[in-house]
Formats: sequence, structure tokens, C-alpha cells
Amino acid sequence: MLPEILDCKTLTAGYREGRFTPVDVVMAVRERIAAWPDKAVWISLRTLEELLAEAEALAADGFDPGRPLWGIPFAIKDNIDLTCLPTTAACPAFAFQPERDATVVARLRAAGAIAIGKTNLDQFATGLNGTRSPYGAPRSVFDPAYISGGSSSGSAVAVASGMVAFSLGTDTAGSGRVPAAFNNLVGVKPTVGLLSGTGLLPACRSIDCISVFAVTADDATRVRRVAEGFDAADPFSVAGEQKPLPEGRLRIGVPLPEGLEFFGDTEAAALYHAAADRLAALGHDLVPVDYAPFRAIADFLYAGPWVAERLAAVEEFHATHAADMDPAVEKIVAGAKAMSATDVWRGLYRFRALKRATEAEWAKMDVLLLPTAPTTYTVADMMADPIRLNSNLGVYTNFVNLTDLAAIAVPAGFRPDGLPFGVTLIAPAFHDDALAALADPLHRAGGFGPGRARNAPLPAPAAPGGARPVAGGGDRIAIAVVGAHLTGQPLNGQLTGLGGSYVRTTRTAADYRLYALAGTVPPKPGLVRDPGFDGPGIEVEIWSLPPEGFGRFVDAIPAPLGIGKLTLQDGTEVSGFLGEGHAVAGAREITAFGGWRAFRAMAEASRTA
Amino acid sequence: MLPEILDCKTLTAGYREGRFTPVDVVMAVRERIAAWPDKAVWISLRTLEELLAEAEALAADGFDPGRPLWGIPFAIKDNIDLTCLPTTAACPAFAFQPERDATVVARLRAAGAIAIGKTNLDQFATGLNGTRSPYGAPRSVFDPAYISGGSSSGSAVAVASGMVAFSLGTDTAGSGRVPAAFNNLVGVKPTVGLLSGTGLLPACRSIDCISVFAVTADDATRVRRVAEGFDAADPFSVAGEQKPLPEGRLRIGVPLPEGLEFFGDTEAAALYHAAADRLAALGHDLVPVDYAPFRAIADFLYAGPWVAERLAAVEEFHATHAADMDPAVEKIVAGAKAMSATDVWRGLYRFRALKRATEAEWAKMDVLLLPTAPTTYTVADMMADPIRLNSNLGVYTNFVNLTDLAAIAVPAGFRPDGLPFGVTLIAPAFHDDALAALADPLHRAGGFGPGRARNAPLPAPAAPGGARPVAGGGDRIAIAVVGAHLTGQPLNGQLTGLGGSYVRTTRTAADYRLYALAGTVPPKPGLVRDPGFDGPGIEVEIWSLPPEGFGRFVDAIPAPLGIGKLTLQDGTEVSGFLGEGHAVAGAREITAFGGWRAFRAMAEASRTA
Repeated sequence: MLPEILDCKTLTAGYREGRFTPVDVVMAVRERIAAWPDKAVWISLRTLEELLAEAEALAADGFDPGRPLWGIPFAIKDNIDLTCLPTTAACPAFAFQPERDATVVARLRAAGAIAIGKTNLDQFATGLNGTRSPYGAPRSVFDPAYISGGSSSGSAVAVASGMVAFSLGTDTAGSGRVPAAFNNLVGVKPTVGLLSGTGLLPACRSIDCISVFAVTADDATRVRRVAEGFDAADPFSVAGEQKPLPEGRLRIGVPLPEGLEFFGDTEAAALYHAAADRLAALGHDLVPVDYAPFRAIADFLYAGPWVAERLAAVEEFHATHAADMDPAVEKIVAGAKAMSATDVWRGLYRFRALKRATEAEWAKMDVLLLPTAPTTYTVADMMADPIRLNSNLGVYTNFVNLTDLAAIAVPAGFRPDGLPFGVTLIAPAFHDDALAALADPLHRAGGFGPGRARNAPLPAPAAPGGARPVAGGGDRIAIAVVGAHLTGQPLNGQLTGLGGSYVRTTRTAADYRLYALAGTVPPKPGLVRDPGFDGPGIEVEIWSLPPEGFGRFVDAIPAPLGIGKLTLQDGTEVSGFLGEGHAVAGAREITAFGGWRAFRAMAEASRTA
Repeated sequence: MLPEILDCKTLTAGYREGRFTPVDVVMAVRERIAAWPDKAVWISLRTLEELLAEAEALAADGFDPGRPLWGIPFAIKDNIDLTCLPTTAACPAFAFQPERDATVVARLRAAGAIAIGKTNLDQFATGLNGTRSPYGAPRSVFDPAYISGGSSSGSAVAVASGMVAFSLGTDTAGSGRVPAAFNNLVGVKPTVGLLSGTGLLPACRSIDCISVFAVTADDATRVRRVAEGFDAADPFSVAGEQKPLPEGRLRIGVPLPEGLEFFGDTEAAALYHAAADRLAALGHDLVPVDYAPFRAIADFLYAGPWVAERLAAVEEFHATHAADMDPAVEKIVAGAKAMSATDVWRGLYRFRALKRATEAEWAKMDVLLLPTAPTTYTVADMMADPIRLNSNLGVYTNFVNLTDLAAIAVPAGFRPDGLPFGVTLIAPAFHDDALAALADPLHRAGGFGPGRARNAPLPAPAAPGGARPVAGGGDRIAIAVVGAHLTGQPLNGQLTGLGGSYVRTTRTAADYRLYALAGTVPPKPGLVRDPGFDGPGIEVEIWSLPPEGFGRFVDAIPAPLGIGKLTLQDGTEVSGFLGEGHAVAGAREITAFGGWRAFRAMAEASRTA
């Protein structure tokens, strides 16, 4: 009845079509949790009675398409508050009973999602490996000898094993991405401040964010959009609008070979390059970038002032309960005691200088493609060398929040031993939507199934070809050009200079006439509509411009030309060039050429003949 | 020959007209310095030989209008590097010989300005009063019993006394504004990061900026523009573009009475309200705002994490030379030794929460008008109570850099005892140019002379009425509307909703015809040009829009209307509405009404008749 691995799209379709009910899903979820051999995934579960009551209440109201997560079961990392259960941060002595849901949890529940329980994590979200918890070490769904990744360990396994359709993690240094890589999932690491941190126990409060695991970029982005929103109660919440990436070919930054580090895992290296090749095959340009400044910041995270943020988050508890903490976590947190106030400032200054060096690399690229993690480790290896191996895991993730970037981790295949590998797409803040639009086709091009069902198909994309509406990408204005602004014509640079992108070539409806305007430099045509006329339609190119560029472009157009609405041959309307009637009155009509380019070719030929 | 108080405009005009030479000016500057009774203004001076050689080299090249500060003498606060002289920060034991000019100094000198010497300051720029220096306490040019303000004490007096035409200060908590108030000067406190900090000894490195004193906002802004520019070598340098304030009436925030504090100085209070009244008389709206959240941040500056920045700047020196420091400064800096790394983070969290509260107030206003300082003190009073009285001086300045605002301090009159008072205009970052355009008419409306010459006229404004080109303000697009978008007509809200401002009402040239388009909802006219036709001209309103708003506006216009270029009755061209020829072909011509409004009035009258 239900797919092996749950996803929002399939569940929503099943509810809408009446194939199952929230009670069916809750029962299945509970059965799957009971059947899963790894008992370290969950720290606490809501009671079956509670879940059934919630599912029945939803069912009684009936499927509601206005609640985008109606009946979708999800898991919550146990450093995010859910009123029904204590928040432990994987430290039993620290546990407390929250009085209200975290703002993000409240938004998801209001949209109809069913919170199943709280998942295991590296204690106080300090770690990228998943072994630092008294509740046990969740294992990769592909091999119980291997780590799940952390700190959002249980949340990743809960999705990848098919227990829930999505889950909340948190991400400070990579905790929302590394577990995605180790469990063949998508991990959305939003722009810092996009999702409220109210009700999130801080790790490094200035750079923490809540993240989302799901089996597709579509699902994770749908959840992120429900969860996000400015929260005046969170001083780190940021109001901002999504931004588009350039249209068409993107410049995908790929580190120079000397900047790539896989700690000897040549299979991971091959999978990384294969992912880059898939992006190239999707029509993008790979550009080499210097990873050294990013790596320098990544290496600085656990040596710099942010360690003191971790101590600040638990200082009172640490003073009285150090012995109750995971030894590795306690050692890291206690390290900040030696740090002075001036050390913090000097560290922040050093960071600013390092960040400046990354800006030169960003000038070369639109998106940075990195391995999500360089390799993976067994639980036994990790516990034998917990600090050094954990640092290895973060070489491609630690710098991202510090330098205010958005990221999406995407599955990128399997090593011959069956362990998964992932890559991450990274762009400046508020490119979350634009990254999702790039991540989805990259993910699908690989042909990797959802979570542990590596050979099953992914749920179908939201729209053909993986294209999906992107808030930012849609915020451009289309313009039909007909003469000197066509590609290769003398004024085309005005479009590109204002951020214009070529979209397509088409024709106007049949009732337009074209004239060669007298005395224009460079030569220009005038297009006018003549209702009832049945001509060939005039060739136009559709370009798109950002609104500001479009405004400047229109304002620079000299009389007798202007911008009105053209009807295209497919009946759609678009802004485009028109000529004033008085100017075409005595001009030569060239409609029969079907377009300015054909007319100019003839004119050139006759001039040179 | 030279005016009593020097300014850039008068000096440049004199050079251009050959009325004096740089050698004359250097000689006069040296004489004025020698004659000034207060010997605490300068810490070091370049030799006369050096200055004359530089002046003669300039003269030999001839006046160069391409060097905007050709021959202009200026002073440099002694925490900014000038190769010719040591940098002391007003602490002899700390002095060092810089190897190169600070970037800002190098820019000014390259523009032809002549650096005269280094001025006194509150040691390590720690203070707002000017008494914390072993080189003595510079006095207000209006009364030697009174403080000059600080920390940029000598730089302010050097301009206000007529020794130099402008000077560089620095501003962390108000050091570039308070001394302006106490010496009847303009003090430009730029957006943090707009001027390079390379070669500036830090006070609080994350929020320091170099500032400019001059006798007019024009002069100070001219200097700031020469000095500014992104500097990749300074990790706190910020690349950004100037932003406009709204056109027309501005919302000027004025604290509610309970938020204003003058420490009993009722004359200062009266001068503040008079300045607000002058802004209202200039056509702006005074809006009440809650000053409490700003004050809370101001009070937090010397209690929060930034004290540790001051220690970080001099920690090594302090460890070995505490006894060589000014006692008040040493006490403040040493206070940070008790601060832990986690204290810094907790302080930054508290600050973020306080900053959030200021955002609600910014939603109500475009510009905040504050007293620059609440009152002033004698040197004797200040030295008797150095910490508390210094805190009083900063209640209106301390929060500005912390919350990333631009500010200009402007003279605002004199108390009956002859001591000056000042106000400060404050707006979000990158409104430096826009603030200057507001500050200049406010300053001139008061009728206060330059510096200590309170009854002398100010140099004439750069353009009639104090208007001056503003980079941001000019970045709007004018559009002529003719029908349903006119003021009071049904679609006018589209303009205002996109940031439109009404500019003026005028008419088109004589060769336009207007038609009432059939079947449009709401009713709309179509304007077309008919070369040779001699009609009445059609009434149009000119509005202005930001480029993005203009772009969106144009894209939303339905056929058969569009935007081309209209010729107005004065011969200028402007973007404006035109109708397609086919649409007016069968429509009723209403040209004789002279405009849409007159036609609609007739149509309404006949309908109701």
C-alpha cells in the first residue's frame, strides 16, 4: 500500500485519492519503527494513542489541499522543541520539558504534518558522525558497521529507512548535510535565519539553522517553504527574498585537484567527478576554483571563537554536570574555557580576512559543487579516533554557515561496497529556491533511488524534466525584441549589459506588420499591429531581464520606438517593441521578409553585390 | 586674503583664479597654528621645509581641476598613519613610525590635499571628551574652559579655528560627531566599511570608521567621496552603492519626550526642538519614535563585548605598559580582562535582540534626528568625574555604528552662554549621499557661520538652494502619465505601490492627439503623436519610479497601451504612455479637452446631469 520509502508527494496523492488514511500511515510508521533493527534512531516517541487521536482528527476534517503537509509523518531532532516530549539534546541529565513547540515545528504541524517523535543526535549537536550519544550510535541504513553521520543522525536514518516522509535536523557545521550523504538523502541546509530558531537549543547560536531531510529536493523544499518565515522573536531571523541564479548555463565551481581531499577514498573521488560531469551534461560550465580559502575557514571552525559559542549554550550545565556529558563533546566544549574575550575578537578578525579570500572565488562561479563528505568511517574507527576523524568529515561543510551560504546535499551514487556518496550544491544566501531547481535534475540524472531503496524509482518530479517553479527565477520580465537588439545585431549588448538572458526565438501573431524606419542609426525596424491582417508573423527573440534592468532598458529606448504588449503566434502576450504610427507612415514595409534579420541579410547582400 | 575659517570651496576658487598659491596657504596655516593659544591641538607637525616643498611642487604643476583637493590643507587624527610622522594614538610609549600612509590618507594626498600634521585625541580613541591625553586637553574654540569633545578633539579644533580646511577623525562611539557639535562643525560619520581602515589603529575594529570634519556638508562629503572606496586589504571594507531616500517629504524620527535626555540642559533641549522645526519648515514630516531601544544599545557599548575589542587592539602593550596609559583609558581597557569568551557571545546575543527592537522604530521613519550630544562640560568637571560624564556624552551616538547606520552631525545653534549645540541626521547604511543632501539645507537654514566664526557667512552652497547632486537620488526614472494613472484616478495606486513619487504637472508638445479608447476598464485614453499638428498640448503628470518599479510598471501595462518617449512642451523627452495606432483609429478624439482629467470631468457631469 505504502511505498518502501515514504515521500510527501506519494502520501499526499494517496490521501487525495482515498487510497489510505492518516490512521493507516500512523500504524505503518509505528510498525516500521518497531521492525527496524537499529534501536538508536529515536530518543523518544509519542504514544500510539496520541498519534492515532491526531490522525483521526485529521481524517475527521477530511483531506485538505490547503494544508500542504496534511497527514505527513515526520521526525524531529531532539534539540528542537516538541511540547509532547522532553528535549534532551542527547544528554539525559540536561533534559527539560518544553512549554511550546519550536516555531518551525508549530508551522509544520499547522500545515497538517504529524510529529512522530524525537531523534538521536551527537550530543548538543556537537559532531558530524553520530556516535556521540548515550542513546547509542545510529548506523547508516546501508551497513550497520558504518556511521550514519551526524549530528542529525537519527533524523536521517528515520527518513532513509522509510519510517517518516521527512525530518528536521539542524546544521551548524554540516549536521544537516553529512547524514544525508551517508544515507542517500537530500539535505536542505537553508540560508541562516530563513527558518526561525525559536525553540532550537543552540550549538553556535550565530550560525545554527534548522535543516530538512527528504528523499527529493522537491519534498525538502516544500517542507522548507512551510517551515520558513521571519520571526521577530528570534534575533537571528532574517527577512529577505529569494534570489535567482542567472538563467541558462551556470558557472559551477569545482575545486582544483590540489584542493580536493578524500583521505585516500578514490571511489569517493570518482563519484564526485561523475557528479560534476552530470552537471556539465545538464548544460552547465565547470569552472576551476581555489578551495584553499574555504578549507582554511572550515579548519578554523573548531579552533576559532565559535567553540566559545558552544560553551555559552551550555555553560551553566557544564559547570555542574561535566561528568554527565559525552567525553568527546565535553572535551570540545571545555576547550573554550581557555579562550579569552580578546581571543574571540582576534578570531573574528582572522575569520573576516579568510572570508574576504573566498569572495574572489565567488566572483568566478554561480554555484559551488563539493563532496558532502570526503569519505566515511565505521563506528569502531570513529570511536577509536573521535576528534580527528570527525574533523575529516567537515572539510567540505564547516565554512558554509560561517560565510552565509545556502546549500543542498544531494545523493551522488554508491561505492562498490554499497556505501553511498553525496555532493552539495552551494550558493550565496537566499538562493535556496534556485539551488533546489538545480539540485533536483542533478539528483534525478544520477538514477539513485530514495534512501535505502537504491534501486527503486524516485517519486516523479513536480513538473516535466525536473523543472519546478522557482520564486526567484520567476522574478524576471520577458521582452520580445525584433530589430537591432536581436542576437548578433548592434544593440544586443544593451540586453546582456543589463542582466538579460536569451530565452527563445518565436514569431508574432499574424496581424503584425514590420517597417524599415528611415534615418535610424543603427538601422531599426518598426513593428505595428494591424488587426485583421493575415501576414507571416514577424520573427522575435524573447529575452528576460531583471525588473530593474528591464526598467532601465525601456527608459533608454528613443522615439519613435517603445514597449507595449505583443501577441505571439501561440497567443501569449509579452512586453515587446512597437513603433509609433506616425513613424511607419512613410516607411518601407518589409513584412514579407518575416523578420528584421532576413531583411538585413538581403540588404547586406545587395550592398556588397 | 584667506577667509578666517578655511573651506575647500573657497580655497579651490582662489587657486583657480590665481588669488593665492599653495605656498601662501601653507604659510598662513603655519602662522595660524603658531598664533592659536591652545597648544594641545596638535601632537606633531610636518616641518615647514617639507610643507613648502610639497606646496611648491603642486604650484609647479599648476592648478589641476582633476585633483579635487588640490592644495587643500588638512589635519589627521593621530591614530591614522601618515608616513612623515609617528603614530602615537596619544600614548608616547606606544608610538611607532608607520611605513606607509593609511589608504584614506594616500587617497586624499593623491587628490592634491596637503597633510599638515597629526592631531590630539583621547588616548587610543577611547573617550568622547578630549581630556584623556598626555598632550593636553584641546578646548572648544568657543570657550577654553570647556571640552572640545573627543576622541577626535584636535581634528575638530584644527578646522573650527581656521587652521585647516578639513580634517580626519575616527568614529567608533561618536568620536567623529561629538567634537563637531562642540565646535560648530559638520561631522560626516560614513557607513562603516565605506572608507578603508587600512592604516587606522583600531579601537573597536568591527565598528571603527574614519570620519571627516569640515565647515559644510558639501565640503565634508566632497572629501568623503575622495577618501572612500572598497579596499580588499581591509577585511571590514564593504562594497556597496549609495541608496536614495524617498523623494519629497521625508519622515523624520524625533524621540518621544520621555526618551530625550539633556541632563538638565534646557537650552540644549530648546535648540534641539528648533532644529526639528527647521526640518519641518523645509517640508518634512516629524514622526515620534521610541528612543528606548537605541538608548539601550548606547548604554550597552561600554558594558558589552566591544570593551574586549579595545583590549584586543592594545593587549600586548597594556600587559607591559599599563602605567604608561591614561588612567581613565587604562581602567576601561583593563575592564575587559574580567570578560570571558562566553561573555562576548552572550553580549552579542543580547545586542542582536536590542537591535531587533530598533528595527520596529526604523519602520516608522526615513531619517532619525537626534541631538549630537545632550550637553557639554568644562574640562575641570570632566576630569573630576571622567567615566560618568563621558557616558553622558554618548547617549545619542554610541548605537550608530553598532547598528550599521550612516550619520552627519550638523551645527544647530548656540546656547545663550555662547557654547554651540549640534544635531545629527541618521539613516541606514549607504545613505551617506542622501543624508548630505538633507544636512546641507538644514545647516544653512539655521544661519550659523563656519566654526568659530559664528557670525560669518557659510561658503555658498554647491548649487542654488542647497540642492546638490546625490548619487542615489538621481537613480530614478521619470514617467509621464496621461490617463487612469493621474493623481486621483483609479490606477494611481499602481505608481505609489511601486515606490512612485509625484514630480510635477506639465503638458506635451503641441503635436499630440488624445483619444478616448473604446471598451477599456477603467476608461483609458490613448495618446499619439502627429508631427506637424498644432494642438493645445495634453496635460501629463510626471512621476518618478525606482528602475525596478518602473520595469514592473511597464510590464503590467496591457495592450493597446505602451511606454515610448513623449516630447514635453519645454522640448524635453521623457518616457510616457502612448497608444497603438490601430486602437485610436476608430476612437473618439478628445484632444480639444487638453487632457484626460478635463474630459472625464465633462463625462461625469453629463452622466449625472
